Amino acid sequence: MAYKMPCAGGIAERLSDIVHDESAWTEFIRSGRAKKVSLAEHENVYFEGDRADRIYEVADGAVMLYKLLPDGRRQVVEILSGGGLFGLQAGELHDCSAETLVASTLHAADRRDVEAANELQSHITRCLLEQLQILHDHTVLLGRKNAFERVATFLMRFVPLRGGAGCLGPGPDADDRVILLAMTRQEIADYLGLTIETVSRIFSEMRRRNLVAVERHDRMRICDVCGICRLTGTH
Amino acid sequence: MAYKMPCAGGIAERLSDIVHDESAWTEFIRSGRAKKVSLAEHENVYFEGDRADRIYEVADGAVMLYKLLPDGRRQVVEILSGGGLFGLQAGELHDCSAETLVASTLHAADRRDVEAANELQSHITRCLLEQLQILHDHTVLLGRKNAFERVATFLMRFVPLRGGAGCLGPGPDADDRVILLAMTRQEIADYLGLTIETVSRIFSEMRRRNLVAVERHDRMRICDVCGICRLTGTH
Repeated sequence: MAYKMPCAGGIAERLSDIVHDESAWTEFIRSGRAKKVSLAEHENVYFEGDRADRIYEVADGAVMLYKLLPDGRRQVVEILSGGGLFGLQAGELHDCSAETLVASTLHAADRRDVEAANELQSHITRCLLEQLQILHDHTVLLGRKNAFERVATFLMRFVPLRGGAGCLGPGPDADDRVILLAMTRQEIADYLGLTIETVSRIFSEMRRRNLVAVERHDRMRICDVCGICRLTGTH
Repeated sequence: MAYKMPCAGGIAERLSDIVHDESAWTEFIRSGRAKKVSLAEHENVYFEGDRADRIYEVADGAVMLYKLLPDGRRQVVEILSGGGLFGLQAGELHDCSAETLVASTLHAADRRDVEAANELQSHITRCLLEQLQILHDHTVLLGRKNAFERVATFLMRFVPLRGGAGCLGPGPDADDRVILLAMTRQEIADYLGLTIETVSRIFSEMRRRNLVAVERHDRMRICDVCGICRLTGTH
């Protein structure tokens, strides 16, 4: 299942003017120094505290990184889709757990091989900087946005080219878009720092206002992209 | 004023077993390719949306990165102290504003010089990975911790070697520690996703319970480190 990353899509497009040479990374993957790993939906890749001996790239699918508090509260801290790197650590242990959201294919490489390959470092730096920028935005969402704004911001991340700098607004046709959430209500809640009840209540309220239509539990139609965008708190 | 970074301290110590060669970076700074810039307390370094032509290192002092929503709500997204790098971007523009918290000295280097110096990349990667790890922890704080846990977590970040993996607990003497906040109540609130009233109320409640004593507006005595640690939600 092709999954559009909810966060990085918009940023990738905003950065599209920057030339980024990925050839060294592509060559590294092709050279056989990275193994292909196929995982089912909701399969664990590693747990927080495991030794960080391998570095992963999402070839296809989507992966969430999450952290648990001792009493079971969970926070999803990152969502990665095609091209996203994860598992890199400054220390020796993973600081998060990683789990697939949907059936996914990963490239898994030995950490020492990646660290020893100088030609990969600019690709890695760029990926880390994109992740930092997404985390800065997410920190604003968690620290300063209300529940309605959080859900609206989450939905807008599935609509690249809209809502950010240079948004052209709606075209001449209906301003709708079908999006594939590929996350359960609980996962969305754990990503947005909300309860599942709040997420469901806000989706219901958005339906009542004809802003969205739920076509399937993981498939939603945004009926009015501008309408959702105006609710993000960033408009 | 020497300022102990509230976040990176603990992490730096947890990572102390990892050898990290900073010599290339030190040599780059010494070579004169980075200029020394002295700034007063609460002086702006750059604004969100400015061109990201320079990369900075905190030589001495502390800097906050923040983002504003159009209605004026502010979220402090990172706090950097000695050795912290900031201003690196994947794109061409700064995604945050940067402002000193206290009088600070920065090393400022041309972005192209840094990007062209292959020998600096492992230092940069390591700094970015440490920042990502801090942001993961901060995401948990903002997304899942209550106000009391947030303030307690913030205070514990000033007490390195305690509270994390391998904490030895209190010694034979009084379990207190004097810490220099170097942030206003408003800045703390904007970092922790709280209102200034909530931060003040929680400090008052902690005083009432003899967990802390406020010695000066920016100087606090933690009277019972274990007591504060048990309130972090991570204990």
